[in-house]
Amino acid sequence: MELIIGPRTYSTWSLRGWLILKHTGADFGVIDVCYDTKAQKAALRDLSPSGFVPVLRVDGEMIWDTLAIGEWAAEHYPQARMWPADPVVRALARSATAEMHSGFSALRTFCGMGPDRPMVGDARSETPSDPALDRDLARIVALFRQMRRRFGGDGPWLFGDWSIADAFFTPVAARVRHFQIDLADHGDDGVASAYVQSLLAHPDFRLWETEALT
Amino acid sequence: MELIIGPRTYSTWSLRGWLILKHTGADFGVIDVCYDTKAQKAALRDLSPSGFVPVLRVDGEMIWDTLAIGEWAAEHYPQARMWPADPVVRALARSATAEMHSGFSALRTFCGMGPDRPMVGDARSETPSDPALDRDLARIVALFRQMRRRFGGDGPWLFGDWSIADAFFTPVAARVRHFQIDLADHGDDGVASAYVQSLLAHPDFRLWETEALT
Repeated sequence: MELIIGPRTYSTWSLRGWLILKHTGADFGVIDVCYDTKAQKAALRDLSPSGFVPVLRVDGEMIWDTLAIGEWAAEHYPQARMWPADPVVRALARSATAEMHSGFSALRTFCGMGPDRPMVGDARSETPSDPALDRDLARIVALFRQMRRRFGGDGPWLFGDWSIADAFFTPVAARVRHFQIDLADHGDDGVASAYVQSLLAHPDFRLWETEALT
Repeated sequence: MELIIGPRTYSTWSLRGWLILKHTGADFGVIDVCYDTKAQKAALRDLSPSGFVPVLRVDGEMIWDTLAIGEWAAEHYPQARMWPADPVVRALARSATAEMHSGFSALRTFCGMGPDRPMVGDARSETPSDPALDRDLARIVALFRQMRRRFGGDGPWLFGDWSIADAFFTPVAARVRHFQIDLADHGDDGVASAYVQSLLAHPDFRLWETEALT
């Protein structure tokens, strides 16, 4: 089983897929690819049906989307409890995860990660400003606060135990850090900021960061 | 249980959610909302945490994303077989569904549905042209051809029995029809076009269309 990923310093979807697989406890290989040049993009087409990363290669098949990799992992490694056990909480966790999967385009545009704007390390950029970005950040703060308050319990995660939702929001935490966003400006009472810190302190993210920087 | 949906003539995500629920065989109510004016958008915030439709209101909770609604339906109505039974085929069906969930932005931009560009009825618009749209259409044709050839079997659907993937691609079929796109121009050998026709002929889509037009 191999996970095909992009550059570890800035491929946000690769990080999500890697965190998910890591949480299963299973052994897996990693194939690092670049997609900056035309030739690299063309070569990636042989490894990824959609041309995007990450892709999970397993049993001769390619699972080519991060959310599909998550659902596959949840089915194959039930002991890893990738989703909340309660069906209602699970449906809300999937809603939050899917909202991240398809949305927050202003955040992804104005706080885009790249070679010189990495998810990892000490580099920081100026905080961008835009009404659409403000709307995304207000929604993210509201979501983090509501879910943490209802389901977070005594632990640090969004829906109780660590879940695929937390994998999906880890790159958001990295953007908040890199672009020095003060969530208090977007309605946070401290709950969302604390959650962001928890995501950045997760041992698997720290390991990803160390490997990306070496 | 109620599904909150947008205008039936052009809310593509509402159609997807509705097709999914319809396929479960369960009784459900429908709450129609508009989101054209500022006041309507503000009112929608009371019904939808993300401000988007569809939302499924069930047991006092709101499931606010179409893919999460699909997974909820798959869990609650196993007899409806919302996903392929084989785990590998299911992972590929989820990959295709998730690719639609987050992608094909050029198709959605250049072939956008709206009050005067409806998914239903006989209105047609000129075929738009753009390199990014061409790339999306080539990928869609390749995906339809590959999955139909491998898993379609004797039936008309993408992965064998009708699944959530087919719900997700039904609005694509409506766009292809409305914008008079000839899939042969994008690498189709007839397989993708036939699949588009099957989606448009599905009794549930026909019912949606009839209700939208009355």
